[in-house]
Amino acid sequence: MMEKRYIGVDLGGTSMKMGVVDGTGHIVCEMEQPTLGQEGPDGVIKRMISHARDLANQSGTPWDQIGGIGVGLPGFLDIPNGVVKHLTNLGWNEVPIRDRLQAAWELPVVINNDANVAALGEAWCGAGAGVDDVVCITLGTGVGGGIIAGGRLIQGMNGFAGEIGHIQMDPRGYQCNCGQTGCLETISSATGMVRMAMEGLNEGRVSILKEMVPGQNQLTTRDLFAAAARNDKLAQEVIDRAIDALARALAILSVVLNPARFIIGGGVSKAGDALFEPLRLAYGKVTQKNAAQGVEILPAKLGNQAGIIGAAGLIARSPN
Amino acid sequence: MMEKRYIGVDLGGTSMKMGVVDGTGHIVCEMEQPTLGQEGPDGVIKRMISHARDLANQSGTPWDQIGGIGVGLPGFLDIPNGVVKHLTNLGWNEVPIRDRLQAAWELPVVINNDANVAALGEAWCGAGAGVDDVVCITLGTGVGGGIIAGGRLIQGMNGFAGEIGHIQMDPRGYQCNCGQTGCLETISSATGMVRMAMEGLNEGRVSILKEMVPGQNQLTTRDLFAAAARNDKLAQEVIDRAIDALARALAILSVVLNPARFIIGGGVSKAGDALFEPLRLAYGKVTQKNAAQGVEILPAKLGNQAGIIGAAGLIARSPN
Repeated sequence: MMEKRYIGVDLGGTSMKMGVVDGTGHIVCEMEQPTLGQEGPDGVIKRMISHARDLANQSGTPWDQIGGIGVGLPGFLDIPNGVVKHLTNLGWNEVPIRDRLQAAWELPVVINNDANVAALGEAWCGAGAGVDDVVCITLGTGVGGGIIAGGRLIQGMNGFAGEIGHIQMDPRGYQCNCGQTGCLETISSATGMVRMAMEGLNEGRVSILKEMVPGQNQLTTRDLFAAAARNDKLAQEVIDRAIDALARALAILSVVLNPARFIIGGGVSKAGDALFEPLRLAYGKVTQKNAAQGVEILPAKLGNQAGIIGAAGLIARSPN
Repeated sequence: MMEKRYIGVDLGGTSMKMGVVDGTGHIVCEMEQPTLGQEGPDGVIKRMISHARDLANQSGTPWDQIGGIGVGLPGFLDIPNGVVKHLTNLGWNEVPIRDRLQAAWELPVVINNDANVAALGEAWCGAGAGVDDVVCITLGTGVGGGIIAGGRLIQGMNGFAGEIGHIQMDPRGYQCNCGQTGCLETISSATGMVRMAMEGLNEGRVSILKEMVPGQNQLTTRDLFAAAARNDKLAQEVIDRAIDALARALAILSVVLNPARFIIGGGVSKAGDALFEPLRLAYGKVTQKNAAQGVEILPAKLGNQAGIIGAAGLIARSPN
């Protein structure tokens, strides 16, 4: 009997990535195609259906050897019913994507949101491999998250679990897009860090950021870390605030979930040691000792492949 | 074939409670015996062993119909290895209780801490029945917790998950026994509430609490709720602070876990509507809308039986 393989699909606003993945999470064959969102759900889904068949062929995997297909989607989903409620980037509303894919592929299909899917990928085959309790955090435009506890993805009643960016760190803080104030995302995302730096510059703070980025609306967290490495006070303050808020959020997650590892990805994580070393120190100071014992804070490993592997894992690692 | 039954043991500092529980979580027969901690672990374990056999007899359950025994313990445990690391109340250290019970009973034995066990009981057969995602919170001397997500108890790497009382609500707050400052427990536990009231009285605040409780070291949260019902400003302020902190902790738990229900037990919860109504209002205000949608905040139902039922559930509801 041939070992089952799985297909993972990672649908984004610009491209759809997919891969044939074996039972150990290894990608056998992958492809990337433009999403072409302007075609609307019908067109996108139609191409997704044929690309998956092509990919299986390309990888030499007979269709009946595919155990199922997982799909990661960037939006608001009704996971149990397999329905896209709303995908902002693509303008989709109320699309019963799972049933349509299942009918066309004649295979079990599971959908989940992209942050959860990436977390599942990292937990299975990336920086979380070998442990059962992992929290993944993506520091990008926003702060995303996904939680694996006891080896399983935590979704909650309506699939909103893992919204780590919306842990409130400061009731008197910045307004967040979510409607609350002072969420972690308003401080420790790239957007939040850049805004804090811009505020400092607008207040007339002395900073080499002014010379480094003449068009200040192009300021990035990479500039902030570069300026801090050159002892820029404002940049360092912004980074310290972002790290302090993140460390306190990890402290909360530690007493709630007691994970073995925190895995940090996304654009801001590319700062490497300049982020991870002070973060580990701050975490050690603010976290209850028992809950912090043995906990590792590690960079994500899989990059873009986390979405493909995790999507395949929705099926390959399901408890049934 | 007879349906399997299970025994749940709830070992406390003063008494050990145990019950024969059927596969639906119904207690068939129960008993309560003094713990007699002064006999040390050997004596206590020996009596626990014989009481369980007696209880099975009493309930008319042949020993080979017992599917296993779960034990809830009030302390610091190594759950995977079944070892009591430290039970403060009883002065036990490094007691390999699971293996000793298993050898004597010749049945599978699982241990877990009392807060997790009570949460499992409530989730299975109490106020959490019928949903898969529940957070239980006990407002007593401290603030304890237990988390059921996707129908399973969340334990974390070292069994410290669910330590909800140690979510930090205020970095500049009171010193907590755990070593950190401003934990939820320092504000919303009975101890925290009474301390805030005492501080007010010591600062010379006008309050009917002075007449109500002449020996102020006997002040309880029941007095606080009684005084607030008589429009006492100090008492109301203390209650508001406790409820505000609790609501904000539930908001955090909602974005992290998206539970369907919060179940609140312990002495402070006996205040009933005077606690639950303002708590629900405050929660609705401070919680991200998607995560709050459809969430219920309910009083615990099972009282002392939660420990017995949940302990039995450690075996009856295990995923294997």
